[in-house]
Amino acid sequence: MAKPWATLGVDLHLEPCGPHLRRGLTDALREAVRSGRLAPGTRLPSSRALAADLGIARNTVADAYAELVAEGWLTARQGSGTRAAAGVVPRTPPGQRKGTAVPSSGAARRPREDTRCAYDLRPGFPDLASFPRTEWLKAARRALTAAPNDAFGYGDPRGRAELRAALAGYLARARGVRADPEWIVVCAGISHGLKLLGAVLRARGVRTVAVESYGLGAHWRFLGGAGLRTAPLPFDRLGTDPGEAADAGAVLLTPAHQFPMGVPLHSDRRAVVVDWARRTGGLVLEDDYDGEFRYDRQPVGALQDLDPDRVVHLGTASKSLAPGLRLAWMVLPPGLAEEVAEAKGRIDTCGVTDQLTLAEFITSGAYDRHVRSARLRYRRRRDALVAALAARAPEVHATGIAAGLHAVLRLPPGSEQSVVQAAAWQGLAVHGLARYRHPDAIDEQPMDALVVGYGTPPDHAWSGALDALCATLPG
Amino acid sequence: MAKPWATLGVDLHLEPCGPHLRRGLTDALREAVRSGRLAPGTRLPSSRALAADLGIARNTVADAYAELVAEGWLTARQGSGTRAAAGVVPRTPPGQRKGTAVPSSGAARRPREDTRCAYDLRPGFPDLASFPRTEWLKAARRALTAAPNDAFGYGDPRGRAELRAALAGYLARARGVRADPEWIVVCAGISHGLKLLGAVLRARGVRTVAVESYGLGAHWRFLGGAGLRTAPLPFDRLGTDPGEAADAGAVLLTPAHQFPMGVPLHSDRRAVVVDWARRTGGLVLEDDYDGEFRYDRQPVGALQDLDPDRVVHLGTASKSLAPGLRLAWMVLPPGLAEEVAEAKGRIDTCGVTDQLTLAEFITSGAYDRHVRSARLRYRRRRDALVAALAARAPEVHATGIAAGLHAVLRLPPGSEQSVVQAAAWQGLAVHGLARYRHPDAIDEQPMDALVVGYGTPPDHAWSGALDALCATLPG
Repeated sequence: MAKPWATLGVDLHLEPCGPHLRRGLTDALREAVRSGRLAPGTRLPSSRALAADLGIARNTVADAYAELVAEGWLTARQGSGTRAAAGVVPRTPPGQRKGTAVPSSGAARRPREDTRCAYDLRPGFPDLASFPRTEWLKAARRALTAAPNDAFGYGDPRGRAELRAALAGYLARARGVRADPEWIVVCAGISHGLKLLGAVLRARGVRTVAVESYGLGAHWRFLGGAGLRTAPLPFDRLGTDPGEAADAGAVLLTPAHQFPMGVPLHSDRRAVVVDWARRTGGLVLEDDYDGEFRYDRQPVGALQDLDPDRVVHLGTASKSLAPGLRLAWMVLPPGLAEEVAEAKGRIDTCGVTDQLTLAEFITSGAYDRHVRSARLRYRRRRDALVAALAARAPEVHATGIAAGLHAVLRLPPGSEQSVVQAAAWQGLAVHGLARYRHPDAIDEQPMDALVVGYGTPPDHAWSGALDALCATLPG
Repeated sequence: MAKPWATLGVDLHLEPCGPHLRRGLTDALREAVRSGRLAPGTRLPSSRALAADLGIARNTVADAYAELVAEGWLTARQGSGTRAAAGVVPRTPPGQRKGTAVPSSGAARRPREDTRCAYDLRPGFPDLASFPRTEWLKAARRALTAAPNDAFGYGDPRGRAELRAALAGYLARARGVRADPEWIVVCAGISHGLKLLGAVLRARGVRTVAVESYGLGAHWRFLGGAGLRTAPLPFDRLGTDPGEAADAGAVLLTPAHQFPMGVPLHSDRRAVVVDWARRTGGLVLEDDYDGEFRYDRQPVGALQDLDPDRVVHLGTASKSLAPGLRLAWMVLPPGLAEEVAEAKGRIDTCGVTDQLTLAEFITSGAYDRHVRSARLRYRRRRDALVAALAARAPEVHATGIAAGLHAVLRLPPGSEQSVVQAAAWQGLAVHGLARYRHPDAIDEQPMDALVVGYGTPPDHAWSGALDALCATLPG
């Protein structure tokens, strides 16, 4: 689903919580209208949609909208939704830079009829058009035909045994995970897994989870929602430095491919964090969201293999297949597996048909074939991106390793926000790095950058998306 | 999945929470071994399984086991699990009643090799063997073929639009629900819906939810987990009396077919509870778990139709199709729909393929056909049950209306627990009414009864299950 506010090109830089949230939102929206970033007449997302997107209470958004309507920045009419008011002259014209198609006059122009962008390079998505529908249906047929009747009853909170067995084999083979099916708990996405882990850690008395200085705000919010403080680890030239985890009860890392910065955890630091866990009794949460996608060499094996008693390995079908399946998994230390299964209970178990289908998909070899084909597809796209940058935006480089479904493009200092805005005016949705920076991030040399999800567009839109990207980049 | 402790015939009568839980569990298990209800050598479920089944913390069970091992009532050996100790002479021989095959000597005998019962008449399940696999797969093929690519992305927290539209039409037609797709939120079972509603009600300041004196302990626990007190309404000859809801913020009811007592909410009292909601601003939660299954007449329409602004209608595919799908729905008053969608977020959304498949299953007419066929199947079983009782256990009558997937069989006073035990010795899993009674139930004439889920067995086991039931009933 399109992220409603991202498509408006309004990067709100909100604090994830705290008393200043509503004020911050109001100010950011007012400034977006005043500056012309929100063109007159642009329909804003519903307060529900924006609140869901930002992960904040709907009332906060509704209050901000109401205040801005009262001030005349927004209009609200029954049936027409909330829109940026007409007659507001942009203070600075948007998109005045080389290579963009945005008119250089400061006059407000009509926004796109719908607020959805033509091209989408936001990270976090695989190419949804390449979901293997036919193969999936074949696996579903085999799985549902073979399933025992009791598979359709209330299930084991850990998930179907068939899927846990298939995952144990696959993860050992593909990611070097030491996995016993008994230690696996199936969950509805890595976020859901973190929510469950957060509840269990909090019940164990943990107060603080060390996180990376860059990551997903949603993850920090779920841990926060469980009553846990998130304390960022320093990010330096070698990547995340887990030596500073200190008194945290757990560390959340993306060791194979830091999200979004795109570097692996340095080999010395892999040992450091496992030592920390052994010394302090802490837990390492290894978010292996895209570990299958490495293009320059064999993927680095899972950190979990270094100490299965201290590392939780989290994986997902959201990148390798599709987020809509809501299927992910945790490989847990034995004692923790029982606690997590208890926290999960039977009520938010994933549907059995997709669990059985994924089990069949894996054991039949279809999953390996699909991952191989996807790896080739995304590798080609990454190569095309790098080549296009070299040819058309030589000042911009993709940083990080050749892996995953996204790249980080370093920009000239101070240009990030304006490039994101220019992209939106090109009909291109793309994210700036700032939105992935923890409010308390420790990074001595923070850079301006784009986070480009080259996995997101369907094949037919890829070259157009790449063109639109190059057109907005400083040449 | 078999309920591990139910199959042991040990009805523990536990308080759902409170400081005496562990003591109560320890005492109940000790008494079960002492009395011979747990025969020597019987393997107990794992502490994880029993804890999950009872909905309590695993440590509570593990502590109780450890205490009883220390006392010599149980034995624990690596690889062999926890078992009732040998050499404990039953105080009273189990199952000494007419028509049972249990030896009348008091000597301990070998328990069944596995602890699973041969026959299962526990309520709450449809006949899992009749899940329409072929039709479901056909619908899945059509749905997945037609789905837009973005269906495989992160979804609307309310669920797929296709499913909400299909449900709105179906619920209006089949249950008289006034439903707009915008007010529907798809959830992973009615329990999940109640968990979400509990969180929203608590956030709105509600402290107490009035519940029926009979119902599901899991529902009370979920509301309790959200910080809400459950206060039972009186149960009398006319069924639940909602006139006593008083200062509760919400009332949870099963109006079409009280679970488990099997009577509909009296028509006068339908008006009473809606009046109460209008007068106090309270909310009625209508759990319509089996509203499609009425055999003597057209089903009574949904209570929600009386006031869609004050009644939440909850329905599920768990009885009409299978619990394993983890698909249920709520039709909510407009304002509440947004709050519930917010509480749900995107992370515990149900998988998209089953949502799309159910939508196609409904719109293609396959759902109606399946419900009609299931209605006939269950009606026949109910008729067979009533006929068998008349012929073989004339003192036992099925109470309640001809509806649903279960019947309540009134027993001679004081005999419930021993009948449940005798059934277990017959290899028949069946529940006593006591386990569905709220700890604070208000019922001036509580009866001894069995709650018989005649929907549960597959066809080939039905007559055997009925025989085993009749053999354990007082003739």
